Amino acid sequence: MHTSRNDDAAGTREERFERGMAVLTSVDGEAGRRVVEGLADIHPELAHQIVAWGFGEIYSRPGLPPRDRQLVTLGMLTALGGCEPQLEVHLNAALNVGLTPTEITEALLHSAAYCGFPKALNATFVARRVFGERGLLPVGEH
Amino acid sequence: MHTSRNDDAAGTREERFERGMAVLTSVDGEAGRRVVEGLADIHPELAHQIVAWGFGEIYSRPGLPPRDRQLVTLGMLTALGGCEPQLEVHLNAALNVGLTPTEITEALLHSAAYCGFPKALNATFVARRVFGERGLLPVGEH
Amino acid sequence: MHTSRNDDAAGTREERFERGMAVLTSVDGEAGRRVVEGLADIHPELAHQIVAWGFGEIYSRPGLPPRDRQLVTLGMLTALGGCEPQLEVHLNAALNVGLTPTEITEALLHSAAYCGFPKALNATFVARRVFGERGLLPVGEH
Amino acid sequence: MHTSRNDDAAGTREERFERGMAVLTSVDGEAGRRVVEGLADIHPELAHQIVAWGFGEIYSRPGLPPRDRQLVTLGMLTALGGCEPQLEVHLNAALNVGLTPTEITEALLHSAAYCGFPKALNATFVARRVFGERGLLPVGEH
Amino acid sequence: MHTSRNDDAAGTREERFERGMAVLTSVDGEAGRRVVEGLADIHPELAHQIVAWGFGEIYSRPGLPPRDRQLVTLGMLTALGGCEPQLEVHLNAALNVGLTPTEITEALLHSAAYCGFPKALNATFVARRVFGERGLLPVGEH
Amino acid sequence: MHTSRNDDAAGTREERFERGMAVLTSVDGEAGRRVVEGLADIHPELAHQIVAWGFGEIYSRPGLPPRDRQLVTLGMLTALGGCEPQLEVHLNAALNVGLTPTEITEALLHSAAYCGFPKALNATFVARRVFGERGLLPVGEH
Repeated sequence: MHTSRNDDAAGTREERFERGMAVLTSVDGEAGRRVVEGLADIHPELAHQIVAWGFGEIYSRPGLPPRDRQLVTLGMLTALGGCEPQLEVHLNAALNVGLTPTEITEALLHSAAYCGFPKALNATFVARRVFGERGLLPVGEH
Repeated sequence: MHTSRNDDAAGTREERFERGMAVLTSVDGEAGRRVVEGLADIHPELAHQIVAWGFGEIYSRPGLPPRDRQLVTLGMLTALGGCEPQLEVHLNAALNVGLTPTEITEALLHSAAYCGFPKALNATFVARRVFGERGLLPVGEH
Repeated sequence: MHTSRNDDAAGTREERFERGMAVLTSVDGEAGRRVVEGLADIHPELAHQIVAWGFGEIYSRPGLPPRDRQLVTLGMLTALGGCEPQLEVHLNAALNVGLTPTEITEALLHSAAYCGFPKALNATFVARRVFGERGLLPVGEH
Repeated sequence: MHTSRNDDAAGTREERFERGMAVLTSVDGEAGRRVVEGLADIHPELAHQIVAWGFGEIYSRPGLPPRDRQLVTLGMLTALGGCEPQLEVHLNAALNVGLTPTEITEALLHSAAYCGFPKALNATFVARRVFGERGLLPVGEH
Repeated sequence: MHTSRNDDAAGTREERFERGMAVLTSVDGEAGRRVVEGLADIHPELAHQIVAWGFGEIYSRPGLPPRDRQLVTLGMLTALGGCEPQLEVHLNAALNVGLTPTEITEALLHSAAYCGFPKALNATFVARRVFGERGLLPVGEH
Repeated sequence: MHTSRNDDAAGTREERFERGMAVLTSVDGEAGRRVVEGLADIHPELAHQIVAWGFGEIYSRPGLPPRDRQLVTLGMLTALGGCEPQLEVHLNAALNVGLTPTEITEALLHSAAYCGFPKALNATFVARRVFGERGLLPVGEH
């Protein structure tokens, strides 16, 4: 049922956390670290699992590169709705791993056909804030 | 598969945008225009499609009058959840096209049976803000 | 906080059930009765509350006519997703209270702009089955 | 179809409201009362139904104790998404009826496996605010 | 940020899978094992993570007993919608860990107030199938 | 607000439909055509809009290649829930535009962290059927 391919998923709890923290930092940068720190007094175990499992074990798998993962993630967060804080983190991540502002806005326009305009708009206004903070406005129609 | 009935859907990109802008303005008024303008630096193409397609081609179809469209829309936005900004625009639109405050609150009470109280409450508190801005509080139980 | 306007909401548990059953039968017909009967061995109390509260107390309120309630309901059930059994009941109800097949398909096209094509398609294929059973296909583009 | 077991569901509209208000106050305390009062000018009938039906008839049923109801409710509000205001009320309620902060955070970690990390995080940050207001931070990993 | 309390989360990939499989079998029984086996040719890694992480690391945590976890899970699966296959597994699990049929139907009635009748009905009809297979119908109103 | 860049969006209703049909056929193949044909007697206008707008105007935009669009779409359909028929079409499309079975299952595993296991499982079992029909099982962990 399970293979030994992903051997680096084994290890102590500490090692798995460290492995995940490296992935999280490379993808989400400061924004990701702030989410983890914001959980310190309310739910350190949730923070541990996001880092050790979400990033250390899932995100780090080699079968899908980070840019592809962000495309899937943008689609999911837009469709779920109500995930504006996570969209903010992952729109930053999307830029960090190589998606261009135009590719991101194309993905959001694409999402309108599948999730409808309201959710596409909500995600787009988060993108507006993130892009603005990074000096990426206006997005050119290049 | 497709008919030529809706011939006015044809035309140049400009013409389709103008047609949609007329519908959007008549239904949503200033609030709708502000959404479109808010997209200018982040996603003008999304704004174009909302106007040219959403309003110019869908909303403008004669088979369902604007008042009926707003009832369907209120139901959808309440059920989707997390669409408070769009509810604000469309509650204004609902009033603009002839729904009374009492009809709207009845629709929201009705939504509680299908979506549960939490989503009905979220939508109702948006209505409270919109009605308050338009001097329509308290809503009478006439 | 609460008025005595809706006095007929008072009464014994039996009376409230009877009042709701009359509304349910007039709106949903046989399909609604089948849902209630299908709950007899698993959850008679849920059946009671749907009938006595949902129909006897909410649906029966005079502030919004049945046709308007079905428009809101179509919007909600399409947006929620995964509610095909309830859509089947309420598409029948929609026809029962006077919505035409064309008005219903217009509402479903309208829903595509707010919920996206997948949910609009799911609801439309339920409508195809309901309309087919009632000899209403093909729906004309009149 | 329906039994006479739950006879106390009968009564006048006033009596049903009073019965529900007693349950709501015992479970939700001040937070619940504020929601009801906040509806006074926009939708007193919705307030009535939440109290008389939601609390007076559903919540008060003896088949499931209040602590169990809050566990189900936490799961639902986390999964629905966009229900942060209701989560705030019900996290207070959860503490009121005997759930410990650690049990609540365990439930939220558990929710990550079923709803994903974004919704678990949104609910957790509401818990952080509620627990902080009640002097319950940091939550110990006891 | 993270503690060493949950040391048994460490270990080889094999050990973590075995630990999870023991929890899954004790909670979900045959139904859970069938889900895992059904993934063998399409996604063994997803099966591994459900078992090793979902059950081995999350479900097995001592802070919330299995009965409480099933109450939260029932709430989530009902609220998410479209999760009938998972509801079937977890309604069996709920019975396995000590929830009675009446407690489960009370939880589903409770869910109607938070998620609306359609989702409560969908979940209830899954319960009808599961209870029927286990000879638990009719559910008494004891 | 809008540019003339996308001039080919202009044209007659017929031209726009033809343009979209070419895109739909190249991406979705037979499965897409069957959806369109299945709408002929219930909602030809919805079919027209899916083709002319969804494919002719949105999908065909050059800013995001088809493979990237399918990654976003997989994320959205998995997150929305209840969209198994659309997932079937788009998993075929995903394979048609160059995503490998392993990339797709990686995306579905990734989705578990954001949408939870139930929705990831639902999507995975659709993938099992689609991959099976195309002789792509078992998916190797290469």
